[in-house]
This record gives sequence, structure tokens and C-alpha cells, in this order.
Amino acid sequence: MTELAIGIDGGGSSCRAAVADRRGNVLGRGKAGPANILSDLDGSLLNIVESAHDALREAGLPAETISKVSAVVGVAGANVGDYGARIERNLPFADGHVVTDALIALQGALGDSDGVIGAFGTGSVYNARRDGKLRGIGGWGFVVGDQASGARLGRDLLEKSLLAYDKVRPSSPLTAKLMAEYGGDPERVVEFAHASKPRDFARYAPLVFDYAAQGDKIAIGIIKDAALAIDENLDALLWPECPAICLLGGLAGAYEPWLAERHKALLRVPKGDVLQGAIELAVNYLQERQKGAA
Amino acid sequence: MTELAIGIDGGGSSCRAAVADRRGNVLGRGKAGPANILSDLDGSLLNIVESAHDALREAGLPAETISKVSAVVGVAGANVGDYGARIERNLPFADGHVVTDALIALQGALGDSDGVIGAFGTGSVYNARRDGKLRGIGGWGFVVGDQASGARLGRDLLEKSLLAYDKVRPSSPLTAKLMAEYGGDPERVVEFAHASKPRDFARYAPLVFDYAAQGDKIAIGIIKDAALAIDENLDALLWPECPAICLLGGLAGAYEPWLAERHKALLRVPKGDVLQGAIELAVNYLQERQKGAA
Repeated sequence: MTELAIGIDGGGSSCRAAVADRRGNVLGRGKAGPANILSDLDGSLLNIVESAHDALREAGLPAETISKVSAVVGVAGANVGDYGARIERNLPFADGHVVTDALIALQGALGDSDGVIGAFGTGSVYNARRDGKLRGIGGWGFVVGDQASGARLGRDLLEKSLLAYDKVRPSSPLTAKLMAEYGGDPERVVEFAHASKPRDFARYAPLVFDYAAQGDKIAIGIIKDAALAIDENLDALLWPECPAICLLGGLAGAYEPWLAERHKALLRVPKGDVLQGAIELAVNYLQERQKGAA
Repeated sequence: MTELAIGIDGGGSSCRAAVADRRGNVLGRGKAGPANILSDLDGSLLNIVESAHDALREAGLPAETISKVSAVVGVAGANVGDYGARIERNLPFADGHVVTDALIALQGALGDSDGVIGAFGTGSVYNARRDGKLRGIGGWGFVVGDQASGARLGRDLLEKSLLAYDKVRPSSPLTAKLMAEYGGDPERVVEFAHASKPRDFARYAPLVFDYAAQGDKIAIGIIKDAALAIDENLDALLWPECPAICLLGGLAGAYEPWLAERHKALLRVPKGDVLQGAIELAVNYLQERQKGAA
């Protein structure tokens, strides 16, 4: 039996893979195009497999090794309808498992322990593992959700800047800066808002945090609203003995000082990244398979 | 001199016109296609003029009368760049004036008096006339504004329903009804939200008001937030001696009981509609012209 495991992070912009030995030591890494299984199942499958081949090549292993390894693929949408099962049926591995992107993120951050993760980038989403059972909330997108996302911080800034322009609410150095960027013309702010995608709004998130740190009252209000949303979501997932909370994503560090003390006390540094989570899960499957064969 | 005036409400879905005598008695009404001067200046001009011709026809007046009347056209975007001036230059009337849709709404509701109007339909917008001077706020669209619009009420309902689904916030009969409409599937709610235009969200506004009247706590919270936004916007426009506030639009009556007492005390029934406002302004110009000629 080949004592190798492959972990794959099937992401919306690229797939990343790593081949590891039975102790989890990485022997080679690979990369390929995106995996968006809900919109392009066949293309996603090709990229997932190609990233594994790329990792085997980097490890100096023959291509046919692929049919002998245990592998875990983490990908968004794996729990929607039969999308995950359709990918899983067509994988070339000896033992291949398709799981959600949430599970590999959780495994990467917490290892085999229980706990809660919250991820804050353009969007925001939360996942818990308790007694091995997963529960995820949020991640509904910024139009009707993702209250602590970078996109919502940016959208809130635009809204509060227009209220300040209309003299309905006070202005601040931050709203003045925002309006100046659009030549003081509210029509241009509205034009930007209507043409923009979540990631465009999210570009304002670091600015909001910077001004909040300098005491800007409107920035502080925006961040406090978002941090309260984080606290509410964490409370919805936590249980009395929960051992750890990990914050992930580009805004994780920025949010940390704004959280409720009861949550700060549980914060832990993530053990590893999402790819690390996929590798660990694949190694777990490999060890189980070896036990079964022994 | 022909003693006739034509008022035109140049709307985004149709143009309505009325020809009146010097006392404002309507002799005939007309209708034509939409006027969206920012996106279709030439088409808007054709429809504006056609609505006037249609009104003259209904009044039994010869077509050439058009070149002898005073006219006022109220249209959105009249104050943006030189759009209003470009329409005005090409009008076939003896004396034609292009003004904002806000001004004809204000004139229709308040007559020649000072006061404040707020309009609440799919969007929300506020206008004041004080000592004859106009000031408008709001109307920036529901992505980053229009806090008391039907679209925002609907969007808030979807957001609060997803928070209830995730057990982050309490549920209520209204959020349960909303989720049931989508088969209890949050993915379908999100799909609707991302495919929808403001008027699609706004279809939920009457439901939110209905449930609020029955004591639904989440409905009440949504309406109170919106009513607070109205109060803030009115406060930004009001002055100590302001004699009147008129609420216009499909949601005007529904909001009335939710407003602050200080604003309820100033509420007045609108004197007339927007077309009435355009007619009055046109009659005013006619009378001035006649004075000038006398």
C-alpha cells in the first residue's frame, strides 16, 4: 500500500494541493485553475485532479501514484444537492473524499479539537465543530447577510457618508475623506455603489479600521456594529465547554480588539491554513485505511 | 394672447399632461411614453411634447395652440448637468420651463406655501421649500440610501429572516412566513435577493406593515428603524416656523402612526398630486406673463 495522502483546497480562484507522507510531512505542492462546482462541475473536477498531479510531479513521484493515495478535497458547495457526490464518484484516488471548504478551514485552524471559527474577508461566515458534529451559519452574501464582512463595512461607510452629506447625521474626517474621493458629488458615490461588486466595497474596510483606531466616531460606529454582529453569531454557535475560537481571513486581526471579552478569552491562534486542514484529514483517512488493512 | 397653461408630469414610466385655463380649471388631459432625460433625452422630449398634444386634442383645441401656451415640465434629473436646459431649449411652447419632479410634487402637495414633503414608495426622498428656496435630501437608492423605502423594508425582512434561520436572532411569525415562502431554504432567499430589483424587495413592504399592526416584534423593529430614519430626515429639513409636512407615495399612510409626535402635529393632507403641481406652476407663469404684457 502506498503510504501517501493528498490534501486539496478547491478554491474559487485556484486549486492548491499537497502530497504528504503518513505523518503529514509535505513532499510536494501543486496548483491548478479554480473549482466552482455549482457553476462548472466538469472544469472543477479537471482542476482538482490537475492540482494533485502537479503536487506529485513536484514530489518527484510517478503520475500513476494518484490511483493509490488517500485524498481529501475541500470545496465550497460540497454540501449542496449531489454536487459533492458527483465530484467524489469521479476522483482518480484509491480513497477520495469531498468535504466542504468550511471543514478543511476548521480542521486547519483547530486540528482534531472542537471549537468555532469565523472567517472575515469580502464575506463573513462561521462554523463550529462540537463532538465531531459541524454547524455553519452566515455566509449569505452582503445584500442580505455577511454583517461583519469587508463588503458590509464598505457599504456602511458609503451610506453614512451620504447621510452626512445630507446633514441627516454628523460628518467625520472619514466621511469627509470618502466624499472628497468622489469630488464631493453624491451622485458619483451612488454610481459607484450601483456598479460595484462585494470586493469593490470591501476595499474600504482597511480605511474604516484605520480611522476607527484614530478615534473617528463614524468609523467606530461602523466597526462596533460589525463586531456586535460577530459576537451575536459566535453566541449562536458557542456552548459552555467550547475550548477555542479562531478568527480567519484578512480582517481577523483587525476585529480582535473589538470583540466582547467573553469571546476574546477563547481566542486561539489558528494551527494551520485550509490546505493544512485538507492534508490532515487526508492523513487521517490514510491511517484509518491502514488500520483496516492491518 | 392665448390664456392657457399646460402642466406636465414627466415620469419614468409615462408622461401625463393637462391643459388649463388661467384660473387652473383643467380643460383636457393627455398621456404619452416615459421621460428619462438622463438616459434618453431625445425620446423624453418627444414624449413630453406628445403628452401636451394629447391634452390639447382632448380639450378640442387646435394643435398649433401649443406654440402659444405657458408650460411647466417636471422631470427627474432636471437639476443634473445641463439636461434640464437642453430639454427647455427644444420645447415648442411660448414659455416653457423645466423643473425637477420634486418641485412639482411639492407644489402639488403644499400649493404656494412653504413646507416639507417626504415621498415613500419603492424609494424614499425628502424636499423642503423655505422662503421659496428648495432643498432636497435622500433618494440615493436602496443600496446605500432610501432608509425608509419599500425596498429597504423588504431587504431588512430578508436579512432578519436569515438571522432567525441561523438562530442568531429570534424568529417571529413574519420571519417564519417569509422562510416558508422559500420552502425553508435560505439558499433560495439569497437567490431571490441577488436577482431582485428594488421594486421586487418593495413588494414585501405591505406585509411588514400588516404584521407590525398585529404585534409581530421583528416587523415592529423593521418599521421603527425606518420611521426613525424618516424622523431624522425631517429634522434635517425642518425649521422652527415650518407650517406643514406632507407624506406622499404608496407607503405614506402606513408610516403616519409610527412617526414622532413632533412631526405628526405638522402633518397635512396633500392639496393635490404632482400633475396638479405642474399645472399650478404653469398657471403662475401664465399670470406673470400676462402681467408683463399688460
